[in-house]
Amino acid sequence: MKVRIKKIDRELLKRAVDIAEQGIQKGGGPFGALITLNGKIISEAHNEVVYSSDPTAHAEILAIRKACDSLRSHDLSGCDLYASCEPCPMCLGAIYWSGISRVFYASEREDAANAGFGDKLFYDELSKSPEERNILFCRIGDIDGSRVFKLWERYEKKIRY
Amino acid sequence: MKVRIKKIDRELLKRAVDIAEQGIQKGGGPFGALITLNGKIISEAHNEVVYSSDPTAHAEILAIRKACDSLRSHDLSGCDLYASCEPCPMCLGAIYWSGISRVFYASEREDAANAGFGDKLFYDELSKSPEERNILFCRIGDIDGSRVFKLWERYEKKIRY
Repeated sequence: MKVRIKKIDRELLKRAVDIAEQGIQKGGGPFGALITLNGKIISEAHNEVVYSSDPTAHAEILAIRKACDSLRSHDLSGCDLYASCEPCPMCLGAIYWSGISRVFYASEREDAANAGFGDKLFYDELSKSPEERNILFCRIGDIDGSRVFKLWERYEKKIRY
Repeated sequence: MKVRIKKIDRELLKRAVDIAEQGIQKGGGPFGALITLNGKIISEAHNEVVYSSDPTAHAEILAIRKACDSLRSHDLSGCDLYASCEPCPMCLGAIYWSGISRVFYASEREDAANAGFGDKLFYDELSKSPEERNILFCRIGDIDGSRVFKLWERYEKKIRY
């Protein structure tokens, strides 16, 4: 997909890098992100993994949660995300679930790997089948999980997403 | 990696499926998860995406966050996760970041896809290079993101994770 990068995209991405830098001083990891809707910033966050004791507290995840909170919706269609570094697989998954439209980033997964972060390794692991991974993934096929999906199908009040 | 599935693993996984079922009645999506440490349950959660307006509120993510909160650590090494369905790429990323040791699950990504969820699609997207994906991923290479990693390297108070 081709895109014409505008001056505002550069400015917003530079701001995401600045947020990452400020985050380090506050005890966060070296990552920053922000989300815009119609060109207006609706959330900003930096990595808080260690001081929040939360391995999911990446800049992008926190920015997505804040943006959703501010819009009171789990759907960020039409929003753009600017991240100081290429989002890791967890954040990429969250981006897909949120429906964010466009992602701009500065550093790449290899830069994060060189700084000691597992992003690239995790991308490689995700592409493997469950039984080939470093962590044990074990399906217990005779436990019936599909009954929940059948119940979901029959549940009249469900809101699909 | 081979594993001998114990009776307790079946019981815990069945409980994760029960949690998923109960979650539907509470307005959640059809997914449940729990985390154990030394065979003891330390957190349980079901999907809360819609009613929490939070696309990251998957059962596994919430269970990880609760477990970390209870242990006051971002590191869940030695813990096991039981999930009613194969974790999606976002949750898989969170599992890697948390250091969880073993994952047991019942349904597979194809079952979730058949129930209308994007898990399989997102797995396929993650394996693609950024420029081949459905969502626009644009690196702006001349914005210097690597300066943050250099600052991180020099930062004496950093806690690596």
